[in-house]
Amino acid sequence: MPERHQRVGIIPRKSHPAALEAARQLCSWLGARGREVYLEDSIEGDYAGTRLGAAELRQTIDFLVVLGGDGTLIHAASVLAGKPIPIFGVNMGSLGFMTEIPVSEMLPALEEALEGRYAVSERMKLDAALYRGDGPPLVRQQVLNDVVISKGALARIADLDVSFDGKPVTLYKADGIIVATPTGSTAYSLSAGGPILYPSLDAVVLAPICPHTLTQRPIVVPPDRAIGIVLQSDNGEVFLTLDGQSGLAMERGDRVEVVRSADRVLLVNNPRLDYFSILRAKLRWGLR
Amino acid sequence: MPERHQRVGIIPRKSHPAALEAARQLCSWLGARGREVYLEDSIEGDYAGTRLGAAELRQTIDFLVVLGGDGTLIHAASVLAGKPIPIFGVNMGSLGFMTEIPVSEMLPALEEALEGRYAVSERMKLDAALYRGDGPPLVRQQVLNDVVISKGALARIADLDVSFDGKPVTLYKADGIIVATPTGSTAYSLSAGGPILYPSLDAVVLAPICPHTLTQRPIVVPPDRAIGIVLQSDNGEVFLTLDGQSGLAMERGDRVEVVRSADRVLLVNNPRLDYFSILRAKLRWGLR
Amino acid sequence: MPERHQRVGIIPRKSHPAALEAARQLCSWLGARGREVYLEDSIEGDYAGTRLGAAELRQTIDFLVVLGGDGTLIHAASVLAGKPIPIFGVNMGSLGFMTEIPVSEMLPALEEALEGRYAVSERMKLDAALYRGDGPPLVRQQVLNDVVISKGALARIADLDVSFDGKPVTLYKADGIIVATPTGSTAYSLSAGGPILYPSLDAVVLAPICPHTLTQRPIVVPPDRAIGIVLQSDNGEVFLTLDGQSGLAMERGDRVEVVRSADRVLLVNNPRLDYFSILRAKLRWGLR
Amino acid sequence: MPERHQRVGIIPRKSHPAALEAARQLCSWLGARGREVYLEDSIEGDYAGTRLGAAELRQTIDFLVVLGGDGTLIHAASVLAGKPIPIFGVNMGSLGFMTEIPVSEMLPALEEALEGRYAVSERMKLDAALYRGDGPPLVRQQVLNDVVISKGALARIADLDVSFDGKPVTLYKADGIIVATPTGSTAYSLSAGGPILYPSLDAVVLAPICPHTLTQRPIVVPPDRAIGIVLQSDNGEVFLTLDGQSGLAMERGDRVEVVRSADRVLLVNNPRLDYFSILRAKLRWGLR
Repeated sequence: MPERHQRVGIIPRKSHPAALEAARQLCSWLGARGREVYLEDSIEGDYAGTRLGAAELRQTIDFLVVLGGDGTLIHAASVLAGKPIPIFGVNMGSLGFMTEIPVSEMLPALEEALEGRYAVSERMKLDAALYRGDGPPLVRQQVLNDVVISKGALARIADLDVSFDGKPVTLYKADGIIVATPTGSTAYSLSAGGPILYPSLDAVVLAPICPHTLTQRPIVVPPDRAIGIVLQSDNGEVFLTLDGQSGLAMERGDRVEVVRSADRVLLVNNPRLDYFSILRAKLRWGLR
Repeated sequence: MPERHQRVGIIPRKSHPAALEAARQLCSWLGARGREVYLEDSIEGDYAGTRLGAAELRQTIDFLVVLGGDGTLIHAASVLAGKPIPIFGVNMGSLGFMTEIPVSEMLPALEEALEGRYAVSERMKLDAALYRGDGPPLVRQQVLNDVVISKGALARIADLDVSFDGKPVTLYKADGIIVATPTGSTAYSLSAGGPILYPSLDAVVLAPICPHTLTQRPIVVPPDRAIGIVLQSDNGEVFLTLDGQSGLAMERGDRVEVVRSADRVLLVNNPRLDYFSILRAKLRWGLR
Repeated sequence: MPERHQRVGIIPRKSHPAALEAARQLCSWLGARGREVYLEDSIEGDYAGTRLGAAELRQTIDFLVVLGGDGTLIHAASVLAGKPIPIFGVNMGSLGFMTEIPVSEMLPALEEALEGRYAVSERMKLDAALYRGDGPPLVRQQVLNDVVISKGALARIADLDVSFDGKPVTLYKADGIIVATPTGSTAYSLSAGGPILYPSLDAVVLAPICPHTLTQRPIVVPPDRAIGIVLQSDNGEVFLTLDGQSGLAMERGDRVEVVRSADRVLLVNNPRLDYFSILRAKLRWGLR
Repeated sequence: MPERHQRVGIIPRKSHPAALEAARQLCSWLGARGREVYLEDSIEGDYAGTRLGAAELRQTIDFLVVLGGDGTLIHAASVLAGKPIPIFGVNMGSLGFMTEIPVSEMLPALEEALEGRYAVSERMKLDAALYRGDGPPLVRQQVLNDVVISKGALARIADLDVSFDGKPVTLYKADGIIVATPTGSTAYSLSAGGPILYPSLDAVVLAPICPHTLTQRPIVVPPDRAIGIVLQSDNGEVFLTLDGQSGLAMERGDRVEVVRSADRVLLVNNPRLDYFSILRAKLRWGLR
């Protein structure tokens, strides 16, 4: 798949001055190397590149540089909306699980990558939809990390009836439940007691948050059959959150369906790091 | 301490018809045995007993029968507001950690207890206060189970700076934190990964909820020195919940202080059960 | 795959009188239905069937009835040594994760199954080998549940250097490590904090036992690339245990390699149970 | 309690050249300050101090310097056998939970301490005894960290019947069980899922190791009533280990009894560190 890239998008973390400054320099650097440069039209300030809306941006570019952390990368993946454009993730501070390339190594690594000399890691996405009654979904969205259903602070507990492939799993009485991709397994799911899933694994983890029943442990299931989650309780607010971005209030009887998306995210690898070296660094293994 | 009791309060679970019916029969049964019977003035319907407000009730009675579950018992403890009146907890359905006496054994056990033939288990309470700025506390309340500070579903994470006896413990980035008594250790804290504390233990458990830092494990501390919790983040709603009853919105900089209360709750023991037999039944030990 | 079966093996749990008695009756029942019946030659007593050694048994039969628990089924799978013969698992007491059919339902279910009317669940096996130096493996064996490397009680800790697909994962300082199939994920691995893997999942879980480093959480990886485990310490005995059956003393520098086996175990499903209904029953979900 | 100290014992970690060298220099330094210096008679080499057996050593000295890690400190506590002599714990490398003083700060801190200007932290010990039949205990020993009963690698599981204050707790089917002091709560017990106990807490934690029943969570109990543990199984070796030092083979029916010791260990505090600052450093809090 790697090829020579000509039309390069740049998505910096908007609230991060160093990321914006790096984006500005990168525009010049790319221009000097004869590349066309594109940015989101929501970005403010002066950049030597063309601004485009999300739909146009993903139709135009053949390579995307993200400057920020994993949150910025999740945003960038949603801008691409499933188009298989390689993402070159540069972290502006601490190493990210997805932004593997330190800013200090950005230019030489990018020089290689733009010539097509790179490997990508494919990351699964999930397709999540929220149904109320028999109508079309209220929301349908792809996520790269996780689908979270969780109670508000004032609700005592959420009753969540979960099924897999149409068969009942169990009724969780819990603070909530997380459905995470391998990519998302090292985010919120890990804090809730979930396992780490190797990034290329064809699997999804279902991790209850503080379940009342102590034996309700995380379950790892194949990604191709639908996970259904029906809210059974109405004793307080319960929200659906997709990749940590949006919170949709659910009502009793609402149904969330999650299944693997046909689309994947392509992450350009840092040739000097493999997955476990990132994991060791992030989780401080080797240290107690 | 046990003595012959003459003025008996009854607090049934108001939403539970069987509890209300049992309360009604108990009024007659107590009247027939020459006892004065008192109820909360908020109770509706026809009972052969005197209605009193909470303040008057706790000044009047020398014994209290609770008909319901652990939630009703927590309410009853707040009605007593620290007065050392023995509570005879009758569960109307499944065994409770505090309502140890099944309704089928209520009358013979009560006959014994009213003559002063019973043992009590003393349960620690916590005194929790919420401070904003330098003024008096916005709220000050005793709890029997737990003080919970937790983020709303739309907040990404709460930053909670915890101190013990004036010394910093750590900054938790988490869904929240639970400060639980031994009594509360088998409630929410257990779901969050906390240990079980023996009911008479002089200790409090500090259990973070889904902490971002995986090594931030539950800590058990002495109860006599203040635990301070300051909310450092303002990226979404964070609430203080006391014994699961009330949710107070916190602001950045708000400070919660928790320390052992001088008051204790006196639970009349079921002579046929000890603590571990209740624990085995509730947690289904002996079964996988 | 299902077909009419004619040559039926029976493997009862040898230490279980009711299993032996059920085996005896089953011999007659099968004979009366015109089936040939085969047993292991190690079984003592009087049965209306032909005794065969393991190698001959698996060449002869086209269907296998196991009477016992999951331990007996693991033994039966090792007798089949990878031959794809359907196993009809009958539990003699409590429900097993693999012995799904209660003895009370055995005969009608078997009548259906012998006519080819049944579904099977395929279960992955692992191929484990222990190497010392450059020679051939000291041991090579297939397992259905798990490969366990664990320290003896007198050793303080085991240092285990784990790799995946030739790349270092980390050095575990722990009581040991478990590599479990989906089938084995509900056995020892679950007690060590591992997740539940759906039985048809293409994945293996790597669960450290009491790791010194608290962030070393269970990892789920694809099964087709080798997991390597090298013992680095020599401060006490460390053993390799395969499906709980055998304990081989390891030496410093010994290397265990684990990868998915080409063979699978075929379990005849109980048509009245699905996986989650078994899980709910075994883990007492729905009850606290 | 602090006073001016004159007769100083030194216990270095014997296998650690830098600790031995520091001990040698310390002998001279103490001699130059007019102190008498004492060492264990098991130490080899040339030191400007008097060698004594353990019994004589603890009768003679009024202050003890330990040079090593927590393991050396546990040894030193056993040499003192309950005599309330302050222990000044110097770590030779990484910070220890008990050896709080870095070698670089040793001399100025010691100068202060020998004049009586220091605070001590009192640490609880446990008295553990192993009984077989009706006779006297086979072993009786004090521990500072933990009492561990654990199965050998070849045993499948240990059945351990635990009681507290004469009342049954439960039957654990597990790899073993740990009874830990607050001091020991950050050692093996933490790896097994136990909570952290504040060092001055009057409590003991009972942490099962990989229990078969998932709801058997760590329990924290008061230290003054006996914990009894009876080995019920005989399907493989089970050992009693006291402070990680000794492994005694247990037989079916053997009974271990654990209760708080009347003696305490006195640790001289590093005036620049409090408990939570040590905990933060050791568990890398503040980092993910």
